Amino acid sequence: MPKTVDFTLPVNEAKKVVEKVLRMKGCDKENARAVTDVMIRVEIDGCVFHGLFRLPGYIASLESGKVNGSARPDIKHLLPSVLRVDGNGGFAPLVLEEVRPVLIQAAQTHGIVAASLINTHHFAALWCEVEPLAEAGLCALACTNYLPAVAPFGGRRPFFGTNPMAFGWPREGKPPFVFDQASAAMARGDLMLAAKANETVPDGIGLDQNGQQTTDPSEILNGGVMLPFGRHKGSSIAIMVELLTAGLCGAPFSHEAAAADNGDGGPPKGGEFILAIDPSKFGDPNWLAHSDSFFEELSGLHGVRLPGSRRHTRRGETDMITFSLAQDLAREL
Amino acid sequence: MPKTVDFTLPVNEAKKVVEKVLRMKGCDKENARAVTDVMIRVEIDGCVFHGLFRLPGYIASLESGKVNGSARPDIKHLLPSVLRVDGNGGFAPLVLEEVRPVLIQAAQTHGIVAASLINTHHFAALWCEVEPLAEAGLCALACTNYLPAVAPFGGRRPFFGTNPMAFGWPREGKPPFVFDQASAAMARGDLMLAAKANETVPDGIGLDQNGQQTTDPSEILNGGVMLPFGRHKGSSIAIMVELLTAGLCGAPFSHEAAAADNGDGGPPKGGEFILAIDPSKFGDPNWLAHSDSFFEELSGLHGVRLPGSRRHTRRGETDMITFSLAQDLAREL
Repeated sequence: MPKTVDFTLPVNEAKKVVEKVLRMKGCDKENARAVTDVMIRVEIDGCVFHGLFRLPGYIASLESGKVNGSARPDIKHLLPSVLRVDGNGGFAPLVLEEVRPVLIQAAQTHGIVAASLINTHHFAALWCEVEPLAEAGLCALACTNYLPAVAPFGGRRPFFGTNPMAFGWPREGKPPFVFDQASAAMARGDLMLAAKANETVPDGIGLDQNGQQTTDPSEILNGGVMLPFGRHKGSSIAIMVELLTAGLCGAPFSHEAAAADNGDGGPPKGGEFILAIDPSKFGDPNWLAHSDSFFEELSGLHGVRLPGSRRHTRRGETDMITFSLAQDLAREL
Repeated sequence: MPKTVDFTLPVNEAKKVVEKVLRMKGCDKENARAVTDVMIRVEIDGCVFHGLFRLPGYIASLESGKVNGSARPDIKHLLPSVLRVDGNGGFAPLVLEEVRPVLIQAAQTHGIVAASLINTHHFAALWCEVEPLAEAGLCALACTNYLPAVAPFGGRRPFFGTNPMAFGWPREGKPPFVFDQASAAMARGDLMLAAKANETVPDGIGLDQNGQQTTDPSEILNGGVMLPFGRHKGSSIAIMVELLTAGLCGAPFSHEAAAADNGDGGPPKGGEFILAIDPSKFGDPNWLAHSDSFFEELSGLHGVRLPGSRRHTRRGETDMITFSLAQDLAREL
């Protein structure tokens, strides 16, 4: 491991440093800002494993030339409710920023819209795409695949990506309901953090390199394999994510992405599927109050917590951000 | 339990008997045929718990007057890609038959279509709606809720329905890929069969009436509660199903359906969400061969079986169907 320097800075200062680092490594101004915004946003919500923890991966993919730091997406309406977005080999955040207003307008006009994204490099939390859509009053679903990391149910070798699926639903006067969950029994980021902290994980999370159950996250990450959540049912969800992402979009399946990737540690080139629905176009004028009564009932049950609520509680709890940079890089600033 | 008479008949004879029973109890000809077709179809595929096992429930809802056995659906295009379907208080099978060609045409024309169904009584396997759409070359997703049966993650009381979600994807020259899974760790039908056979179920399937883990399916079914698959992740999927079904469609959430139901043992009045996508409209002309290569890779992995494949293998293995009728009813035939 290269030596690192730790920084603890106010949000705005941290943003400036991270943007500068990304620009030094080859991002243009807009891409540096968009990538930084996504990392900082999840840091503010306390999702550290998708925050600046990912900066070295972004840097690695710029250094290796895998990702074009100056790319701009091409957005095409194939049909009024079908978008095709070519990321032209750039990072996902700027692509997602540019497609967002197009999705919102199409959903509000046509009731439903689906976008297939290709040639993007996705390395961030997936709730970042559905939350703004839900804030705009839409129901939103997004999914993406990755490099092989999860064994199909019954198997012992990595085949699916972590294959997150995120879903958002609007609430009036409250943050939207949002969940974002990997098809793996535990998110790769959580496993990496557990390994770093020398902690064990529960049974059913992964197998070691011999295909045996293990509770050591390092054994799972180094030559072992993660398992899908909920046995064959999570495995089915992972298949659905592969099909909506790679099958529908014409992007690489996770097992294909591995063959094409240069192994620099950054995100592979891949696809993403986003669905946006305007519930107000489906015939029930009372949909927002009706669904809110459901959330109130649910969150009022003893022992039950709404998915995503912990993130909203944490939001803005701190205005300081802590991260590390390689010593060489820190010296250049 | 009332005394019953067992029948073992060739498929066509069984159909005639079941249709006759449904007509005697109040279904018109078309509804009797449609309901019978769905039950027989799942019997042929070996899914006994959604087959004629459900006939007493259909009968109960006709006898109690909860369901209108002569209903016809109203299908409205709210927008080119948004359908609203009012089942007018009938059973789901005829509604689904009538909406199917409309869905197929809309998806093939506009790339994507979503239907919200209301005022229907759903009591069948959900793969029955997505498989014909996938056979027509579409990617299809369907979900529906039910009466409270599953506790949210962390909770101890029934709140979600079993909330199945079914997904289909076309294959060339092969049966489509289809999965259909409840948000419960085990389908209610499987639990009922296990209870009937005095078998135990694994840990994590449900709690007894005191909120304690149990492996006795009768304890789960009688005053206890089923748990979601994959802990909080399956619980999130169950929430998504409630929102897409009840929130979007303006149908009762599962906890509302309980309050409105007459407890006759048949299906409550509810909603359903169906999404159909034509992958050929999303910009990748190679999508079918590409996704098929994924299925080939996946099914070639050691220990891995494609979801739904067991059903396709079983299909047509037998041309005899076994079922029971109440003695009084059998006498009337």
